[in-house]
Amino acid sequence: MSITISLPKMHSVSGFKLGTACAGIKKADHKDMVIMSFPASANVAGVFTQNAFCAAPVHVCKAHLYEAPTQYFLINTGNANAGTGEQGMADAHKTCEQLGELTGTVAQGVLPFSTGVIGECLPIDKIIKALPNALNNLSEQHWKEAAIGILTTDTCTKGASSQIEIDGKVVTITGISKGSGMIRPDMATMLGFVATDATIEKKTLQALLKSAVDHSFNRITVDGDTSTNDACMLVATGESKASIIASEQHPDYPILLRAITDVLEQLAKAIVLDGEGATKLINIKVSSGKSEQECQDVAYTIAHSPLVKTAFFASDPNWGRILAAVGRSGLSGLDINALEIYLDDVCLVRQGGRATDYTEQRGQAVMDQDEISIFVDLHRGDSSSEIWTCDLSYDYVKINAEYRT
Amino acid sequence: MSITISLPKMHSVSGFKLGTACAGIKKADHKDMVIMSFPASANVAGVFTQNAFCAAPVHVCKAHLYEAPTQYFLINTGNANAGTGEQGMADAHKTCEQLGELTGTVAQGVLPFSTGVIGECLPIDKIIKALPNALNNLSEQHWKEAAIGILTTDTCTKGASSQIEIDGKVVTITGISKGSGMIRPDMATMLGFVATDATIEKKTLQALLKSAVDHSFNRITVDGDTSTNDACMLVATGESKASIIASEQHPDYPILLRAITDVLEQLAKAIVLDGEGATKLINIKVSSGKSEQECQDVAYTIAHSPLVKTAFFASDPNWGRILAAVGRSGLSGLDINALEIYLDDVCLVRQGGRATDYTEQRGQAVMDQDEISIFVDLHRGDSSSEIWTCDLSYDYVKINAEYRT
Repeated sequence: MSITISLPKMHSVSGFKLGTACAGIKKADHKDMVIMSFPASANVAGVFTQNAFCAAPVHVCKAHLYEAPTQYFLINTGNANAGTGEQGMADAHKTCEQLGELTGTVAQGVLPFSTGVIGECLPIDKIIKALPNALNNLSEQHWKEAAIGILTTDTCTKGASSQIEIDGKVVTITGISKGSGMIRPDMATMLGFVATDATIEKKTLQALLKSAVDHSFNRITVDGDTSTNDACMLVATGESKASIIASEQHPDYPILLRAITDVLEQLAKAIVLDGEGATKLINIKVSSGKSEQECQDVAYTIAHSPLVKTAFFASDPNWGRILAAVGRSGLSGLDINALEIYLDDVCLVRQGGRATDYTEQRGQAVMDQDEISIFVDLHRGDSSSEIWTCDLSYDYVKINAEYRT
Repeated sequence: MSITISLPKMHSVSGFKLGTACAGIKKADHKDMVIMSFPASANVAGVFTQNAFCAAPVHVCKAHLYEAPTQYFLINTGNANAGTGEQGMADAHKTCEQLGELTGTVAQGVLPFSTGVIGECLPIDKIIKALPNALNNLSEQHWKEAAIGILTTDTCTKGASSQIEIDGKVVTITGISKGSGMIRPDMATMLGFVATDATIEKKTLQALLKSAVDHSFNRITVDGDTSTNDACMLVATGESKASIIASEQHPDYPILLRAITDVLEQLAKAIVLDGEGATKLINIKVSSGKSEQECQDVAYTIAHSPLVKTAFFASDPNWGRILAAVGRSGLSGLDINALEIYLDDVCLVRQGGRATDYTEQRGQAVMDQDEISIFVDLHRGDSSSEIWTCDLSYDYVKINAEYRT
């Protein structure tokens, strides 16, 4: 399968280097290993899958993050090192030790990430053999190569980059992601790696990442499944020389948060657009709810309804399916006569039935677009939430039914 | 589309009559109306959709059930009278009034049921005109005709019938259902009508129905969607002359409960097997959980995973997808090393990874069957739960994407 290489201008981030190599894990002459390096003075934050079955590298990442300053990310594709028991833990540790030895750092300074097939042991000899090549390739200019190197069954590269001004200094934020579907066949993974040269205290960085992920990666869904390997990492090298952001109360914190959330949002939307068999990007906004949670419940019930998703694939403005999804989303005391449902700016549902000014023609015009918004106004509170998803096509079934045959 | 008419021997239920007619609601010369009648002395229980957007007839049913003894069910297909606002309520009332006038009963003695397209007003003139024909057709022998008359997009009739002995008397239980998918395109409905000549007090009958539905209709899922019109009704005519069951403590209550649950289970499984594009019946059992709720959570997370469902369609023993679904089902403190996952009697997962005695060949042999069991042993408690679902095929997407085109 050929990969579409399409990236915006990827600004380099001072202090953050990327190197790739061909380890031959599944295929020969295929970039399947990426190393990222940064100074021990950089701060690192990470969020990981909530799946109770998390893969060996996720366990090792979490432990290492708190044991020593991180200086290296070691990423391999072709094998997820998941469902591999104690051998998988030993293998993940071994690759960290080897990279530590080669670079004169402690093993705990390395975080491992694996993505690919599950239930097979990591071919660590191949990985160890390729480490020197990847290290020799390290450069601040290699974002594109790394964006290619972390892909598995993705059909296109995913990257975003922006620059803002903080404290009179230019601050850069650049990131890449992989994944097509919240979970690709056999649980290959959603991964995101974002670097900034902003200066930000470690605890504050973790809070910022958590908040940014909650409004980006945690707001996308293709099929409701969650991988065992999902991870999103944020590194702040501090080399922009902008003043340190030491807490969430710092006046520049909201500016940086907004800019990083924007980058993550672009990376997250790119995953939905590369969703299995996806032909449309669907934005679901739910507003005027009693709490953000209930707005999310409504949004996800719509997003996960196979009937809604197939209707979008067919460009069918089937308001009954959206209405039924809202109705079964579990909100107590929901007044069906008070709420409104829109497709873009076309009102579909009002006072418990089809809006009187709705016409099939107006609905069809919206549905024929590649990007569509569903807007649900609950009219019962001040909270809101927003997520992105895609449609459900023949190709989703084809890809997932035929993956192993 | 031709319908397969396949029913077991349908024992008639003394006092319970069924009549059909062609009202021409959507198509000419098509049985699209069914009336069921029974004495005012019969007891009636009902359970209805939990969807907040319930259709007009559901509102009317609930009100009438408590206002007067029920003597008639009036069912039409071709139009669901849902999303029709105040006009829909008036129309549902009007049909009850008309049937009441023709039969000399109060309007509140009639319960209306509608299934078909939503958002269009009920053609009440056509319905009213056909009432005399359906009344003239009433007979205790017309279960087959009624089983055909309640279908919409179903591909086959669905019926079950059994006889047991209570108090030295033969007691009959006979029922029919419709639906293919928990919700068919445009929210046509899951309906079940079951009659028995057992003698059972009204409140006890309602408790019995609730319990039987909880272990049958509420244990099936095709796509996780819930219709606006779902209803299941149970009528006890008392004409078997078996002694009255006045409470759940009566010694014959468990016997009747078991027999009625069996009939409902057959009707519910028939709906899954007629699920949109279904090629396989999948039974999911989760045992040794801390509560029935957590066992259900795991079972439904597996049943609703599009990745699991497409793997079953492909006859692919993809244990990683089942394991990932269990992992994200939200159980706190789940010990992944303690649980086991089986396909029929083949152990797939043990100690956090693929079982050492598992072979692809053994898994494949199970997957090649038309009926498959997934068994998850949580090893952390005494509760269990069991549900039925089907696979996700190309035809599911085809049926739902092309329904209105």
